[in-house]
Amino acid sequence: MGYILLTGGAGYIGSHTALELLNAGFSVLSFDNFSNSSAEALNRVQQLTGKNLISIQGDIRDEAALRQLFSQYAISAVVHFAGLKAVGESTQLPLHYYDNNVAGTVTLCRVMRDFGVKKLVFSSSATVYGDAKQVPIPETAPRSATNPYGQSKLMIEHILEDLVKAEPDWGITLLRYFNPVGAHDSGRIGEDPSGIPNNLMPFISQVAVGKRASLSVFGNDYPTHDGTGVRDYIHVVDLARGHVKALQYLQHNTGIEAINLGTGTGYSVLDMVNAFSRVNAVSVPFTIAPRRPGDIATCYAQPGKAKALLGWQAEKTLDDMVRDSWRWQQANPNGYSR
Amino acid sequence: MGYILLTGGAGYIGSHTALELLNAGFSVLSFDNFSNSSAEALNRVQQLTGKNLISIQGDIRDEAALRQLFSQYAISAVVHFAGLKAVGESTQLPLHYYDNNVAGTVTLCRVMRDFGVKKLVFSSSATVYGDAKQVPIPETAPRSATNPYGQSKLMIEHILEDLVKAEPDWGITLLRYFNPVGAHDSGRIGEDPSGIPNNLMPFISQVAVGKRASLSVFGNDYPTHDGTGVRDYIHVVDLARGHVKALQYLQHNTGIEAINLGTGTGYSVLDMVNAFSRVNAVSVPFTIAPRRPGDIATCYAQPGKAKALLGWQAEKTLDDMVRDSWRWQQANPNGYSR
Repeated sequence: MGYILLTGGAGYIGSHTALELLNAGFSVLSFDNFSNSSAEALNRVQQLTGKNLISIQGDIRDEAALRQLFSQYAISAVVHFAGLKAVGESTQLPLHYYDNNVAGTVTLCRVMRDFGVKKLVFSSSATVYGDAKQVPIPETAPRSATNPYGQSKLMIEHILEDLVKAEPDWGITLLRYFNPVGAHDSGRIGEDPSGIPNNLMPFISQVAVGKRASLSVFGNDYPTHDGTGVRDYIHVVDLARGHVKALQYLQHNTGIEAINLGTGTGYSVLDMVNAFSRVNAVSVPFTIAPRRPGDIATCYAQPGKAKALLGWQAEKTLDDMVRDSWRWQQANPNGYSR
Repeated sequence: MGYILLTGGAGYIGSHTALELLNAGFSVLSFDNFSNSSAEALNRVQQLTGKNLISIQGDIRDEAALRQLFSQYAISAVVHFAGLKAVGESTQLPLHYYDNNVAGTVTLCRVMRDFGVKKLVFSSSATVYGDAKQVPIPETAPRSATNPYGQSKLMIEHILEDLVKAEPDWGITLLRYFNPVGAHDSGRIGEDPSGIPNNLMPFISQVAVGKRASLSVFGNDYPTHDGTGVRDYIHVVDLARGHVKALQYLQHNTGIEAINLGTGTGYSVLDMVNAFSRVNAVSVPFTIAPRRPGDIATCYAQPGKAKALLGWQAEKTLDDMVRDSWRWQQANPNGYSR
C-alpha cells in the first residue's frame, strides 16, 4: 500500500486526519500551499504520533507540481481537503473560490486519472443542502447553494458524480461535514483561523481568552428551544476518524457515495456558550445581534448512512468539544505562533 | 475602441460572428486552439469582408498565453465562444469538459479582471433549461442539467452571476442559444463538424450529399404535430448578429442578463427534412429509430427579451436555413478541406 495523499494536509481537519491515519498505520503525504495553514501543525502531528510523514509545499492548481508529486511517490488514495472555506470571503472573491476549489479539483482528478489513482475522499459540506426544508437531513435531500463557497462544493459533487458515471472504476466518497469543532485532546493541534474567526467555536475561545471583548449571537428569535440557531457540532477527532473509515471502505468499493459526517444532535449557540462556560469555568460575554441574512434556524444530520456503510459514528461529547477547544486555545493563544 | 476578443473565434458561431463584427466596423481578435475548428474559416471571413482580423492560436486554459494576449492588444470586450459542445462526448470525458469549459472560463475571467476588461458575452445554451416543463421557455424558467456539457454551461452561468454580484462594474450577457443551423449565404463559411455530426442539420446535409446513407429520426411518437421532436432552429447569421447587438448593449450597461437567442418558432425533425428536400430539390432518406434517452418532445424560446433589451430578433426563414446549409455543404463537401 502506497501513500495516502492529503491535499491541504496541514489544515484544521487535514492535520487531525493525518494524525489518525498515522496512528492507524497508513503512510501519509501532505501537499499544502500553506495559504491558510502552518507547517508547524504537521511537525506536531509527527511529535504526537512518533511517526514521520512527508510534507510538500505546493498548490493543487499547479498541474506540473502535481504530476511531479505523483511521479515521485507511490500514491494509493487521495483525501482532498485543499480548498477555501470562508463564506463571506467567497461572496467577495468568487473567481478566487471557483479557481481554487473547482478548477483545482478538476486538475487534481485529471492528474490522478493519468497516474491510475482512482480512490478519492472529498471534503464536501452540509452547505450543499442549502436551506434544508427538513431535519434531520438525509443524504438524499435536495441540494442547492446560497453562496459561492457552497456553490463550489456543489459543483465539485456534480463533477465527481459525472466522473464516476463515465469511469465506474473510481471509488469516491463525498464526506459532507456538519460543524467541526474541538481539537486533539493533547491541545497541541487545533483550529487556527487567520483574522476574525468565521465560526462560532474559535470565536467563543477567543472571547474566553480575552482576545475579543464579546461574542455576537446573531438572532435569538429563531423557532428553536432558546431562540438561537441550532447546528450539528462534531468533534474534529471524530471527523478525522470518519476519513480513516472512508479510506478503508474505498479499499473494497468503487462507485460514489455521499455520506454525512455529523452527530445527529443539534445544539444552539447558547448551548455551546453555556457548555463552554460550565466545563471550562470561564465566562463568555455575549450580546444579541440581528439575524444574519442567509442563516437558517436549525441544521443537523441524519447520520445513519455513515454508520451503515463505514461503521462510523461520532463518539465525543459536547463537553469533549468545549474542553478540547479551550485546551488548544489556552496552550496556543496565537495559534501556530503567527 | 479596442479589439473585440473572440475566444473560439474560428468555430461555427465564432466565424460568423467575426464576419458580422467586421462588417459592423469592429476590430476583431480571435484566440482559438483549433481543436475543433480551422484557421481557414477566418481566412474566408477576411476574404468575404475585405477586412483584416488578427488570429492567434492558443488555449484559454493557458493563463500565461492569455496574459500575453491581453498585454499585447488593447481589448475592450470579450465574446467567449471557446468550449467543447458534444453532449455524448461530455458523458464520456467529463473532466475534459469541466477543464475546458469551466476552468477555462474562470481563467479567462481572472485575466480579464486583472487587465480591467469587464465586458463579456458568453455562449450559453438552451440546454441550461434541462427538461423544460413549459414552452415557450422564458429566461426565468428553472435551470438544471442532464449531462456534463449542460452542467458545464450551468456552472459557468452561476460563476458569472456570482462575479457580477461581487463586482457590479462588470457587464455580462449570457446568450442562451437554441439550435443554430444554416451558414453564411455565400456558402463560404459554415458548420464543419468532425466525425459523425451530433446535430440534425449537418447530418441531413451529409445524407443529401451522399456521404451518409440515411438519417435516423429518433422517435416518431412524441406529442407533437407529426410525432417527431420539435426544436427552435435559428439561422447562424441571425445568431451572429445577436452577438453584435449584445456587444452594443454592453457599451452602455453593466450587470448581468441572460437572453434567449431563438426564433420562438418550433419545427419538427420531419419539418426540417421536408423543407430541405423541397427547397433544395434533393432527397433525404430517413428511417425511424427509437427515442434517445434524455430527449424531450418540444423546446422553443420565448424570444421577447432579446427584442426588448437588444433590439434583436431572428429574420431568416426556414427556407433560408435549409438553402444556406445546402449551399455550404455542396461547395465544401469536406468542410474546410480536412
